[in-house]
Amino acid sequence: MKGKAVLNPADAAFVKRLAVAVPGLWLGAAEPRYLEEPRGRWRGQAGVLARPETVAQVSALLGFCHAERVGVVPFGGGTGLVGGQVASEGPVPVALSLERMRAVRQVDGQALVIEAGATLQAVQDAAAAVGKRFPLTLASQGSAQIGGCLATNAGGVNVLRYGTARALCLGLEVVLADGTIWHGLKRLAKDNTGYDLRDLIIGSEGSLGIITAASLRLHEPPAVEGVALLAVPSPAAAVALLGLAQARFAGCVSAFELISGQGLAFLREVGPEVALPFAADPDWSVLIELGLPAGMEAEAAFADLYEAAGDLVSDAVVAQSGVQAAALWQMRESIPLANRRIGAISSHDIAVPGADIPAFIAAATEMLREIGDFRLNCFGHVGDGNLHFNVFPAEGRRREEYEAIRSEVMAAVHRLVVKRFDGSISAEHGIGRLKVGELARSAAPAKMAMMRAIKTALDPRGILNPGVILPAAS
Amino acid sequence: MKGKAVLNPADAAFVKRLAVAVPGLWLGAAEPRYLEEPRGRWRGQAGVLARPETVAQVSALLGFCHAERVGVVPFGGGTGLVGGQVASEGPVPVALSLERMRAVRQVDGQALVIEAGATLQAVQDAAAAVGKRFPLTLASQGSAQIGGCLATNAGGVNVLRYGTARALCLGLEVVLADGTIWHGLKRLAKDNTGYDLRDLIIGSEGSLGIITAASLRLHEPPAVEGVALLAVPSPAAAVALLGLAQARFAGCVSAFELISGQGLAFLREVGPEVALPFAADPDWSVLIELGLPAGMEAEAAFADLYEAAGDLVSDAVVAQSGVQAAALWQMRESIPLANRRIGAISSHDIAVPGADIPAFIAAATEMLREIGDFRLNCFGHVGDGNLHFNVFPAEGRRREEYEAIRSEVMAAVHRLVVKRFDGSISAEHGIGRLKVGELARSAAPAKMAMMRAIKTALDPRGILNPGVILPAAS
Repeated sequence: MKGKAVLNPADAAFVKRLAVAVPGLWLGAAEPRYLEEPRGRWRGQAGVLARPETVAQVSALLGFCHAERVGVVPFGGGTGLVGGQVASEGPVPVALSLERMRAVRQVDGQALVIEAGATLQAVQDAAAAVGKRFPLTLASQGSAQIGGCLATNAGGVNVLRYGTARALCLGLEVVLADGTIWHGLKRLAKDNTGYDLRDLIIGSEGSLGIITAASLRLHEPPAVEGVALLAVPSPAAAVALLGLAQARFAGCVSAFELISGQGLAFLREVGPEVALPFAADPDWSVLIELGLPAGMEAEAAFADLYEAAGDLVSDAVVAQSGVQAAALWQMRESIPLANRRIGAISSHDIAVPGADIPAFIAAATEMLREIGDFRLNCFGHVGDGNLHFNVFPAEGRRREEYEAIRSEVMAAVHRLVVKRFDGSISAEHGIGRLKVGELARSAAPAKMAMMRAIKTALDPRGILNPGVILPAAS
Repeated sequence: MKGKAVLNPADAAFVKRLAVAVPGLWLGAAEPRYLEEPRGRWRGQAGVLARPETVAQVSALLGFCHAERVGVVPFGGGTGLVGGQVASEGPVPVALSLERMRAVRQVDGQALVIEAGATLQAVQDAAAAVGKRFPLTLASQGSAQIGGCLATNAGGVNVLRYGTARALCLGLEVVLADGTIWHGLKRLAKDNTGYDLRDLIIGSEGSLGIITAASLRLHEPPAVEGVALLAVPSPAAAVALLGLAQARFAGCVSAFELISGQGLAFLREVGPEVALPFAADPDWSVLIELGLPAGMEAEAAFADLYEAAGDLVSDAVVAQSGVQAAALWQMRESIPLANRRIGAISSHDIAVPGADIPAFIAAATEMLREIGDFRLNCFGHVGDGNLHFNVFPAEGRRREEYEAIRSEVMAAVHRLVVKRFDGSISAEHGIGRLKVGELARSAAPAKMAMMRAIKTALDPRGILNPGVILPAAS
C-alpha cells in the first residue's frame, strides 16, 4: 500500500456518513477561528469540525477517515507560527479539535497525566496545585494546548534548564492513522524497551499520530528564585556572560534571554506599555533567571556574577520582589507583540551552535545591509543558541514595499544558517506548512528519505495533517 | 519489498567478494572476545570481523551486505548485559567493530564531535581537556564505546541530573541499512526541523542504523561537589529523602543511589575489598552526590539535609575529601562485581514510577518468598525510579539448583512490574536478545506494530543486528 492516491474531500456526503459511523461525536461547521493562524498568512479550509470527548471517539473518527481516505488537520490552541494548524490547499479535510478532552487523569508529585486539549496554563496550574512545577513556559500559554505543545515540541524561555516539551514528557496516548490507539502513558523516568516512539511522535506536528493525552514530568520548584536584567556591550559579551553564569551556577540558570535595543525601541514606538528599567535603552541586554538551592540568596548571587563579569556587564537591574521580576518578564514577553504591531517582513526562528551566536548576528546583519534597508530585531533564547532574528521595514517605510524581496530575505538568512553555521531553520516553531520547501532544499537527503519512509510506514494513506513537514501526496 | 526472505550467511565465498568490493577494509577472523558477553549466556558467531577506519568504509560494507542480504552485528565495547552484541543463532553474520574509528573531530566548550569507537572514558577525558564534563558515568566506561552507549541509550549514576545518553547527544552520523550515510552531526541545543530521527536511532541497539560518530553535549562541572552516604530505615525513607533533597537542591542532586544491606554483605563475603563506612551495615542506605553553585559548601548542605531529614536518616558519612568521595563511589560501583561473584539466578533492570519504589520492593520481596528461598540484592538508581532487582541463591546453595525456576522468577518479576506498576522490564540495559520474547508479550500491541513498521521501513531486508529488539525475519 503505497498511499500515493490523492485524498478525498470531507464533503457533505462524507460528513453524513461520518455522523452515522461515529454516533455521539460532536460535528459542526468550523467557525473562522479554527481556520486562522496568528500571522495571517494562511486561511484554512475544513469540511467539518470534529470535537471528540473521548479517545474512543478519536479512534473511531480516524479509523473512518482512514477508510475513506479523508485528511484530518488537528487544531490545538491555534498559536503555532508556521501554519501547521490550517490547511489552505488540497482536498478539504476534517478539522479536529480536542478542546473538550482536557481532564486531569492522574497526578502525584512526579507526574501529571492530562488530556491533550488542556491549555499549557491549565497544566501549569495542575502542577502548582500539588506543589510542583511544569516548567514549559510560552507567551501563548493561556491558549496553547498541551497536545499542540507536544506535537510541535514547543520550547520557550526555560529550555536552557528544563529542555523542550520533549524532555518534559514521560509518556503518550496516541491515536494512529488507522484509528489504532497506542496506550503509552508510562510515568517512568527511564524505559529502554525498544524504539523511542514517544519522541518520534513528539515534534511530528500531527503527521504521524494524534496525541490524546500525555504523562508529564513535574519538577520541584527551586527553593530560591531571582530575576535580573543586565546590560551587555555586545552579543559576544552575552555569550561570555552565559559561560560565567554556568560556571558559577551550573544547573541553576533557568533562563538567559537576549534583548536588543531595537526590541526596546519597538516597545517605546508601538507598545504595549511596559516598564523599561534602564534610562537609556542599551543596545543589548540579557534577562537572567536563577533558581537556586536553599541557603543561597538571589541578590547576592547576581551581585557575585556582576562582580565577576567585569566589562561584560555595563549596568544591571536586579528584581527586588516577585512583582519586579514579573515586570521584567512582561517586558521580555511583550516583544513579540510589538513585533507584530510593527509588522515583520520575514521572521526567522534559527539556531546555531551557542558559541557562534555573535558571528551569526554579525554576518546576518552585514548580509542584510547589502540586500536592503531594514530594522533588525534579534532576540530570544541565546542560552540555547536559538534566536528570533526578525527583519522589519526601515523607519517610515511600509512592509508592503518589501513584498518583492521577502522570499530573498528569508532564503538568504536560511542559507547563511545552514551553509555557514550548520544551524537550524526552525529551532522551536517547527516546519508546519511554511517551511516545507525550505526543509526539502536544506536538509540532508538521507534525513528526508528516512522521514518519508517513516511517514509512509505509519500513515500509508497520508491522512494525518497532510502537507505538514513533508509535501502532501499528489 | 517486505524483507521476509531469510538472510544469507557470511560464508567464505561472501567474505572473498566483500574483500574485493571494499578494498582497504580490514577483515579478519573474529577473536573470541568479539563473540562473548559479560554474563556468559550467549556465545556469538561471525563469518568475519570487519574493522573499518572511515565512515566511507562502513557505508561500502553495509551497502554490500544489503545487496547480498547478509546480517551485520555491531560490537562496541562488549559490555552490554542483554546479548545485543552477539548473535548466536541464525545465518552467520558479519561482526562489525568501530574500534579503529575513535578520533575527536571537533571540540569546543559546548560540544564534542567524536567517532563511535572511542571509549566513554576517552569521551570524558576529551571533555575534561577543555574544562567541561561529559556526565554519562558507568562502571564499564573504560571499555564501553560511545557508539554502543548511544545505540543502547545507556544510563548510569548521573541520569537524575543529566538524563540518559539520549539527552547528552546533539547529533549523529549514521550509516543506514543500504549504506546511505546520514550526515546529522548538528551541534544544536534546539532543532525542530522534522521527525526526531536522532532519538529514534539512539536506543535502537544497532537495528536501524550504525552510529559512526556523535556530537555530544558538554556540561559545565558544578562549582562545588560533595558525596555522602546516608543510612535510612527503609526504601520509603529513601524516597522521602529524595523529595527533601530535591526541594532544597533542585537541579543540583547529581546522583541518588540506593544500596541494600545484602549488597554490603556480598561485598564482605566475596569482595572486592572496599571500605565499608558504617560499623554495622545498615539494611538500606543512599549514596548522594550534590553539585552546587559557587558560594555553597557541600558539607554544610549535607548537614542541613541531615537536620531536615529527622527520622528519615539514622546515620551519615560525609566525604571530607575527593579521595573519600571516590571511596564511597568505589563501594557503590563494586556491587555489580560482587553480584557476579555470587552469581545471580535472575537479574532485573526495572523501572516503576518513583513514588512506587517502596511498594514494588515490598511486593516483589513477598512474591519471591512464595516461590523459593532466595537472597535479594536490590540497588541502584532510585532517583530515577530504576532498580537493579537481582535474585540470588540462599546462603550455602548453588545457582545451578535454581535452574528449573529461573524463568519462572524472571517472568514473575516482570509481570509484577508491568501489570501492577505499569513499569519497564528494561529501564537502562535495553532489550538485546535476552528480552525479545518478554517485550513481545508485555508491550502494547500498537507499540510493537509501530516498531515493526519502522524496522521494515528503514531496514527492509533486516540485515542490521538481526534478532535484537524484534525477532529476526524467518
